[in-house]
Amino acid sequence: MEFKNVTAQAKGNVYFDGNVVSHAITLEDGSKKTFGFIFAGEYYFGTEAAERMEITDGECVVKIKGEDAEKTVKAGEYFDVPANSGFDIKVAAGTAQYICSYIV
Amino acid sequence: MEFKNVTAQAKGNVYFDGNVVSHAITLEDGSKKTFGFIFAGEYYFGTEAAERMEITDGECVVKIKGEDAEKTVKAGEYFDVPANSGFDIKVAAGTAQYICSYIV
Repeated sequence: MEFKNVTAQAKGNVYFDGNVVSHAITLEDGSKKTFGFIFAGEYYFGTEAAERMEITDGECVVKIKGEDAEKTVKAGEYFDVPANSGFDIKVAAGTAQYICSYIV
Repeated sequence: MEFKNVTAQAKGNVYFDGNVVSHAITLEDGSKKTFGFIFAGEYYFGTEAAERMEITDGECVVKIKGEDAEKTVKAGEYFDVPANSGFDIKVAAGTAQYICSYIV
């Protein structure tokens, strides 16, 4: 999957001592996305704006803040996170990749 | 540092079991760059086209194939690698980041 006519930031974001890293792009309409890698482990991310997380490689187990049920999200699937919320995400092994879209 | 009007690939490249990962962009003139993260460790990369490696965060120690001397390359500095050659690269701790430009 590719995005045309975007502005790409060369320097990426590093979270959890490098266990989650990403690069950011800004699209023509001003909206932002990040492309990221998640390495094996369990992490919690808080949200400000609402987010759509599309898994593009590998898989993960996700629990949205305030919800009881976990769900497995595989490559080709996505999950949405409300604004001012958060989610726990687990990658059992290897690497998962994602596109995070900020829904404003 | 940012690059405007590029095409960005959402799915990245994973090398050495995730110890080196990158995302690719194609610029308006058709040239390609990758933005990458290198985690602590020692790696060897072969080259086809000549490459310019700009370190944008952290630092590394590099030895170009066929050369005897190693050199430390810090954020803001770069090293060039001839075509059909290669380089050893060491990151002592943490994460280094780079922009790789393919010189055709």
